[in-house]
Amino acid sequence: MSAELNPKSGLHQLRHIESSKIFQGVVITIIILSALTIGAKTYDLPTLVESSLTVMDNAITVFFLIEILFRFAACPDKKRFLFDGWNLFDTLVVVGSLIPLNNSEAVLLGRLLRVFRVLRLVSVVPELRFLINSLLKAIPRMGYIALLMFIIFYIYAAMGSMFFAKVDEALWGDVAIAMLTLFRVATFEDWTDVMYATMEAYPLSWIYYLTFIFLTAFVFLNMMIGAILEVMGEEQNAREAQRAHDERDEMARQLTAIQTQLNKLSTQIGAGSRQT
Amino acid sequence: MSAELNPKSGLHQLRHIESSKIFQGVVITIIILSALTIGAKTYDLPTLVESSLTVMDNAITVFFLIEILFRFAACPDKKRFLFDGWNLFDTLVVVGSLIPLNNSEAVLLGRLLRVFRVLRLVSVVPELRFLINSLLKAIPRMGYIALLMFIIFYIYAAMGSMFFAKVDEALWGDVAIAMLTLFRVATFEDWTDVMYATMEAYPLSWIYYLTFIFLTAFVFLNMMIGAILEVMGEEQNAREAQRAHDERDEMARQLTAIQTQLNKLSTQIGAGSRQT
Amino acid sequence: MSAELNPKSGLHQLRHIESSKIFQGVVITIIILSALTIGAKTYDLPTLVESSLTVMDNAITVFFLIEILFRFAACPDKKRFLFDGWNLFDTLVVVGSLIPLNNSEAVLLGRLLRVFRVLRLVSVVPELRFLINSLLKAIPRMGYIALLMFIIFYIYAAMGSMFFAKVDEALWGDVAIAMLTLFRVATFEDWTDVMYATMEAYPLSWIYYLTFIFLTAFVFLNMMIGAILEVMGEEQNAREAQRAHDERDEMARQLTAIQTQLNKLSTQIGAGSRQT
Amino acid sequence: MSAELNPKSGLHQLRHIESSKIFQGVVITIIILSALTIGAKTYDLPTLVESSLTVMDNAITVFFLIEILFRFAACPDKKRFLFDGWNLFDTLVVVGSLIPLNNSEAVLLGRLLRVFRVLRLVSVVPELRFLINSLLKAIPRMGYIALLMFIIFYIYAAMGSMFFAKVDEALWGDVAIAMLTLFRVATFEDWTDVMYATMEAYPLSWIYYLTFIFLTAFVFLNMMIGAILEVMGEEQNAREAQRAHDERDEMARQLTAIQTQLNKLSTQIGAGSRQT
Repeated sequence: MSAELNPKSGLHQLRHIESSKIFQGVVITIIILSALTIGAKTYDLPTLVESSLTVMDNAITVFFLIEILFRFAACPDKKRFLFDGWNLFDTLVVVGSLIPLNNSEAVLLGRLLRVFRVLRLVSVVPELRFLINSLLKAIPRMGYIALLMFIIFYIYAAMGSMFFAKVDEALWGDVAIAMLTLFRVATFEDWTDVMYATMEAYPLSWIYYLTFIFLTAFVFLNMMIGAILEVMGEEQNAREAQRAHDERDEMARQLTAIQTQLNKLSTQIGAGSRQT
Repeated sequence: MSAELNPKSGLHQLRHIESSKIFQGVVITIIILSALTIGAKTYDLPTLVESSLTVMDNAITVFFLIEILFRFAACPDKKRFLFDGWNLFDTLVVVGSLIPLNNSEAVLLGRLLRVFRVLRLVSVVPELRFLINSLLKAIPRMGYIALLMFIIFYIYAAMGSMFFAKVDEALWGDVAIAMLTLFRVATFEDWTDVMYATMEAYPLSWIYYLTFIFLTAFVFLNMMIGAILEVMGEEQNAREAQRAHDERDEMARQLTAIQTQLNKLSTQIGAGSRQT
Repeated sequence: MSAELNPKSGLHQLRHIESSKIFQGVVITIIILSALTIGAKTYDLPTLVESSLTVMDNAITVFFLIEILFRFAACPDKKRFLFDGWNLFDTLVVVGSLIPLNNSEAVLLGRLLRVFRVLRLVSVVPELRFLINSLLKAIPRMGYIALLMFIIFYIYAAMGSMFFAKVDEALWGDVAIAMLTLFRVATFEDWTDVMYATMEAYPLSWIYYLTFIFLTAFVFLNMMIGAILEVMGEEQNAREAQRAHDERDEMARQLTAIQTQLNKLSTQIGAGSRQT
Repeated sequence: MSAELNPKSGLHQLRHIESSKIFQGVVITIIILSALTIGAKTYDLPTLVESSLTVMDNAITVFFLIEILFRFAACPDKKRFLFDGWNLFDTLVVVGSLIPLNNSEAVLLGRLLRVFRVLRLVSVVPELRFLINSLLKAIPRMGYIALLMFIIFYIYAAMGSMFFAKVDEALWGDVAIAMLTLFRVATFEDWTDVMYATMEAYPLSWIYYLTFIFLTAFVFLNMMIGAILEVMGEEQNAREAQRAHDERDEMARQLTAIQTQLNKLSTQIGAGSRQT
């Protein structure tokens, strides 16, 4: 390893520093400090603390900039560095903080960008990165279920705003508002208030709510079961394939031994019969 | 394939068009457009947009009619086409939109039918169709649990309306209203308000609510576990049967090889002993 | 079967009738009718209907009495009949309805007993009986978790009524009321209202609620996982034992065939060498 | 066993008493009595009962002290006794009750310590101890998920208090209060009230709530699935390893029998050919 890196020993040294525990620890500490700074700013603070927080904020921005440049320098494959999602995210968050902002609107945007620095913790701690990646992998398998859910919501929302718009404009005014109301019903949040209001105009409208709740709960339940089964199936397949392989190996070894013995026996008999 | 369809090459060509990606894409686009039209109508729109939406709505109805006639023409087995649930549903929704409606009641019904056009997305996208079919398959296994749930609800509702009717007529007036109230309790929706009201008349009525909640939660939990286990069992059985078959094949192959060798050996010895 | 029952052919005939589909169907119909009668009584009805319901109610009681006596007569083992939980329950519900009730308190009790007749559906339909039995089997495995849950509730309730009793006597008055309030918190029912009230007196009381919610949710989650695993384990053990048995049988059969062949070979060689 | 303990027969006798069912039963009874005493004190009681409860409380404290000293005496390895978490907890709770408390603040602390005596039930009943230990084992595997959850909460809380602080100071005042509000949203507790309030100032703020709910629900769901899979994987691995071992043993036995037979055959042939 060291032999092939010897020519570019500078790069080697940079990588050595980057992967060191101390460097990682310092970066994580600074990110947590950055998170605390963001949190502290939401409190009413004396101006002295406020201004020292601003100084610290700038210092953290500079540190992050240096850190990313350092990482870039330490990376042997510059192209892959730029195409890695996490690095891109880190760069965006840090560079975004550098843009000078004057008017109040932009200040809020700047503070928002600083909030996302906390997410850098995910990009730096490998366990969290692994976790996020495995969560992202779970999304596609939920794609069609999500589409089905959306269709159910859309149909019920269209029906709801058709019938109930004149009951409560704020809840059923148009299809978008109705979808939000239905999401509220799906979380069981004061859904009976919504139902009792529409039941005064349409006494049978409880059918609408109950079928909606059963449908969404049923689809959700099946989605969850499906997700459990799929992940389980994958893991089990891998494990079983390994086990079947191991077993076959063991058996094959023993059977080969028997075949060898039979071959030897066969030769012996052949020799014996030829002798006679 | 093409040989046997050659005589009815018209049908062949129709099927070719029907199964083409472009045709599918156009149909899906029109369905989504139809869904957007339905959604747009729930907003307050200028009359120009409103009337152009009506024109578009009619155009979509005509398109759907042509599409279904086309599908029917392209289908080699006309009988099976009519007995397929999805096709029947498609036809119903489209033909329903054709009936001229004048009075306001019927207009609402017409708009309702148009809402169900969104469900045509399910009948056209094969993945959604597969999903729905697998969801439908899950219903029968929940049959007896649902019956048990209903019995629990009915008994508690009968008790509830017996005791609590004079506390709150709107919540416990008769057995049907009481069941709705109990469903509300089962979703934990402001259930303590209901309980506190009845506890003033019957201080021990918390027993009624707690036993009900525990019973329904317990039955529901067991139903969920049962569903997970059943689906899992089916999948695992299939997988294990396959694996056991594969393993047996492998072993049988090796054992047959040994038996063949033994037979050869046996013949050799027989020949040897006869030689001597 | 018929031979050994011939001497007591009366009993035989009774059993034949009892297990017939028609008899079962009639009983189930009467139970459903009884359930509908109970439900109908919760509505405000004209006196004519009311009185005819009472007549029908009495007729149903008589029918149930005859049915149970019939079942008892048809049962060859009278002792086992009396010790069966379902039969005992049936008898109790029916005999309970026979006691004449005059004062209003007792009338309510009588009506309550009639409600439990609906549960006879469970004792008559074998699938529901099986379901209930399997649910009852699930209870003991939840015993210690339930005890742990109770301890958590008790400790928090004791703490709650110690600190918060002076904040809201109605919610935290004594340990029993506090446990009810905590159950409400565990179902997330307006729990923030409870918390915000106590946070005014004890600003740190959110710790109390959050730890409680996390503890109960955590224990509940583990209980659910445990239940899934246990049931799954049992099923899988049974299935795997069967499969392992089948596989071993198959292999043993093949290996025995090889051993037989080897024995034959051995005899052949022995004969061959003796020949020479 | 008795032979090696004979020299220190006093210790032996103590251990015999400690592990006896009667001793365990007495201790559990006293703990339950202690729990009831704590619960009783939350009620308004006549002074006579109150004072007798205090006497009983002191008696229980003395009993617990003697019990722990007894356990310590009975334990052959004094060092391990002190390092066991459960014993330490027991000692702390009991010794804590001995400290004389005068001012009202301290009295509350004393009562709080007495509440924790109920937890002694867990340390005394082995099944509960086992349950708690298995629950504690489940914590580390949730560590990184919990950290991720915290990061999500922190980022949303920082954003929330940034934008919504001026809408409702009581809900979004600073990052800590905002996190509590978000926890409330995550439990669906009157979350629409919170949303509707902020939607008046920021009409698009529903995006904030919906993404938050989906994120937390999604992460939570995956955590649950992960937990189920992990526990299941462990159990299955153990079971499968055992089964694979058993199967291999069985097969190996049979194959060894074949090899022995072949060896015998080989010797026979060798002898046979040598004879000739």
